[in-house]
Amino acid sequence: MSESKKNIPMEEVAGNGLLHRRVFLSQGAALISAGSFNLLTARPASAQTTVDIPPWMKVPGAGMSGYGSRAAHEDYIQRNPVSALGTTGSGGSRTPLQSLEGMITPSALHFERHHSGIPDISPDDHRLLIHGMVDRPLIFTMDALSRYPMVSRIHFIECSGNSRVGFNTEPAPGSCGDLHGLVSCSEWTGVPLAILLEEAGIDPRAQWVLAEGADAAVMSRSVPVEKIMDDALLALYQNGERLRPDNGYPVRLLLPGYEGNISVKWLRRIKATAEPTMTRDETSKYTDLRQDGKSLIFTFPMEVKSVITSPSPGLSMSGSGLYEISGLAWSGSGKIIAVEVSADGGQSWARAALSEPVLSKAMTRFRMAWRWNGGDAVIKSRAIDESGAIQPGRDQLLEEKGTKFNYHYNGIQSWRVASDGEVVNVYG
Amino acid sequence: MSESKKNIPMEEVAGNGLLHRRVFLSQGAALISAGSFNLLTARPASAQTTVDIPPWMKVPGAGMSGYGSRAAHEDYIQRNPVSALGTTGSGGSRTPLQSLEGMITPSALHFERHHSGIPDISPDDHRLLIHGMVDRPLIFTMDALSRYPMVSRIHFIECSGNSRVGFNTEPAPGSCGDLHGLVSCSEWTGVPLAILLEEAGIDPRAQWVLAEGADAAVMSRSVPVEKIMDDALLALYQNGERLRPDNGYPVRLLLPGYEGNISVKWLRRIKATAEPTMTRDETSKYTDLRQDGKSLIFTFPMEVKSVITSPSPGLSMSGSGLYEISGLAWSGSGKIIAVEVSADGGQSWARAALSEPVLSKAMTRFRMAWRWNGGDAVIKSRAIDESGAIQPGRDQLLEEKGTKFNYHYNGIQSWRVASDGEVVNVYG
Repeated sequence: MSESKKNIPMEEVAGNGLLHRRVFLSQGAALISAGSFNLLTARPASAQTTVDIPPWMKVPGAGMSGYGSRAAHEDYIQRNPVSALGTTGSGGSRTPLQSLEGMITPSALHFERHHSGIPDISPDDHRLLIHGMVDRPLIFTMDALSRYPMVSRIHFIECSGNSRVGFNTEPAPGSCGDLHGLVSCSEWTGVPLAILLEEAGIDPRAQWVLAEGADAAVMSRSVPVEKIMDDALLALYQNGERLRPDNGYPVRLLLPGYEGNISVKWLRRIKATAEPTMTRDETSKYTDLRQDGKSLIFTFPMEVKSVITSPSPGLSMSGSGLYEISGLAWSGSGKIIAVEVSADGGQSWARAALSEPVLSKAMTRFRMAWRWNGGDAVIKSRAIDESGAIQPGRDQLLEEKGTKFNYHYNGIQSWRVASDGEVVNVYG
Repeated sequence: MSESKKNIPMEEVAGNGLLHRRVFLSQGAALISAGSFNLLTARPASAQTTVDIPPWMKVPGAGMSGYGSRAAHEDYIQRNPVSALGTTGSGGSRTPLQSLEGMITPSALHFERHHSGIPDISPDDHRLLIHGMVDRPLIFTMDALSRYPMVSRIHFIECSGNSRVGFNTEPAPGSCGDLHGLVSCSEWTGVPLAILLEEAGIDPRAQWVLAEGADAAVMSRSVPVEKIMDDALLALYQNGERLRPDNGYPVRLLLPGYEGNISVKWLRRIKATAEPTMTRDETSKYTDLRQDGKSLIFTFPMEVKSVITSPSPGLSMSGSGLYEISGLAWSGSGKIIAVEVSADGGQSWARAALSEPVLSKAMTRFRMAWRWNGGDAVIKSRAIDESGAIQPGRDQLLEEKGTKFNYHYNGIQSWRVASDGEVVNVYG
């Protein structure tokens, strides 16, 4: 090892072992002590080492297929489906965030939230009606809709009830996905709804539209026309292929950055109205009960938020040494401009690296180098978006929102790493 | 309809009906004549119109699941698997590009090319050996590899044999995917190989590495160290979840922009060498036979290319009127900076809109507005990348490469749209 390598230390950027990310760059790998990684991970081999010929190299493998599937060894990675009591098909299932990497959620693991199950829709028979305060009411077949110009965009969808256990008095047990997995991110392709409303000749006095789903719950929400004209899509494709049934096949509304419930799945009707319709789904649910007993309604955008996905509960640490902290950040108000990470319970913070491309209203993967000393540590992340909003601590959030809220929890998540490598949810 | 709407024409930007894309923007929709779209697509409804309650709204739907699947109505969208004669598991299957949208290819429809089938690898027993001209040979378990720092990037992979039917004397029949579907695009997450080679202490005299797969074909290729140090990944994740078996589970090499074959799947060994190893797979195959009888070897980067995916063969046009032309462009040399589209057989060209984000060595979706007059038309696209390379016409390509090439076909694709709406592959 050369003298120059010996003399360059691993630079701490915040307390308790957070390191400058150059330790993880290719030039940086040459700067760190030889063996920094492999003491923990790779096994030294002799120069003559070969690897035994495994059994799968001795026989021809399986052939091609029309539609592939994942490895059986990965089948244990599942959404965690929970049905609402006394209902059929109503409930949710969460994305196992702790098992995924990058920013795209595989469609098969996109979170679900249904109010009366997944309707079995024939795309040939499904219709979309645009009516109400318009000059020319229109009906679309799915083939007709597919003829319209489309746009493709990568956006997250987050249920406004995501992370609601954070309002509990005591920290809930569970994995990162169990606690925060009602959020997923996909590439969506579809028709800008603005085009269709212009074509129908929307009345300038129409300030809202009703969006109605073709499920048995007839899930319905009121949407401001301003949002529709800004960036609303009628999404037909998710991650390259047609929408999955659990995500609204054959067509869903997509309102980037808004609470997930309003991106109505299995969309069958858009009605232009002067006022909001005050549907069951926006009066009995999806409102925010304040401390004074009054409720906020139409609180659409999801606030700036982040969570460390690794390490996180269920992924135990295997001894002191170098680790990469990896996580996700997102905001309904635009791009993430920074994510800060702390490994000393919030006493000091350092900026994480953001994985390009950083896109508006999309997941952003962040990464941070950490040299864990093997002792008790509390790690946390906080995100900042381009509107200047900073993810609040839990105390600050409870002070601002009160304890009766049931939605829109975006407080900083703290994970305690114990000296035995176990990771658990903690407050503060 | 107001006078102003009547007086604003749809602006032609190139011959035979290519229109400025503002016709497809939300402001543009108001400018075009009412009915421009709906004459073709949407059905006018009366103001009192309602949509019948379909049967799937009358019963609760299906519940949540651990790992979702696509709609049965979409099952017909398949890769087209072709086994090589007299082999087991060797051959390929192509991505049905004509049925997809956006830039991400769903992993289940990512193209396949195997030389002795898909090995059934146990991730607990798989090992990666790094040896040869290094100070410290290393062996990695998959768990050890997962501990290393990762990066996430969206990149295409294209088989160098993609589109090879373009070298045929007569235009081949088939869909866009049949002809050009040995290319796909995913978000890949993995460990920069540079970090591991630095850790192993690669000898400065090592200018190449051998990359060897754990399939029964022991697929092996030589890679310049310069490329490894630039942007090579050991990919562990594809579109958020672990690699699929048909894409190299549990770990593959990923060399962005290089011909697909060299991104060795089921990677088991990296050996640093002074010279290329001259493996069977880079001498008997994947070389380019010139007109003078000599072969080019180590022609790694995939050249700038594009193809219109809609309309394309099998997607018939349903009468004259407004259409969106949609397609994909990519280059192994960096970002796409422009895609030009012609609807008059190449006499005139106009710039298509590129869907953001436009990323280096990734698919870029392009879109163009077209008013088809219902007559015979030849449509084509040509891409330009940031290196300044322009996709060549077929004649130019044959002149430069000769007719004995079997790889690296990137000529402009022409589709003939007949007056009955049928679309076929044509030359010129």
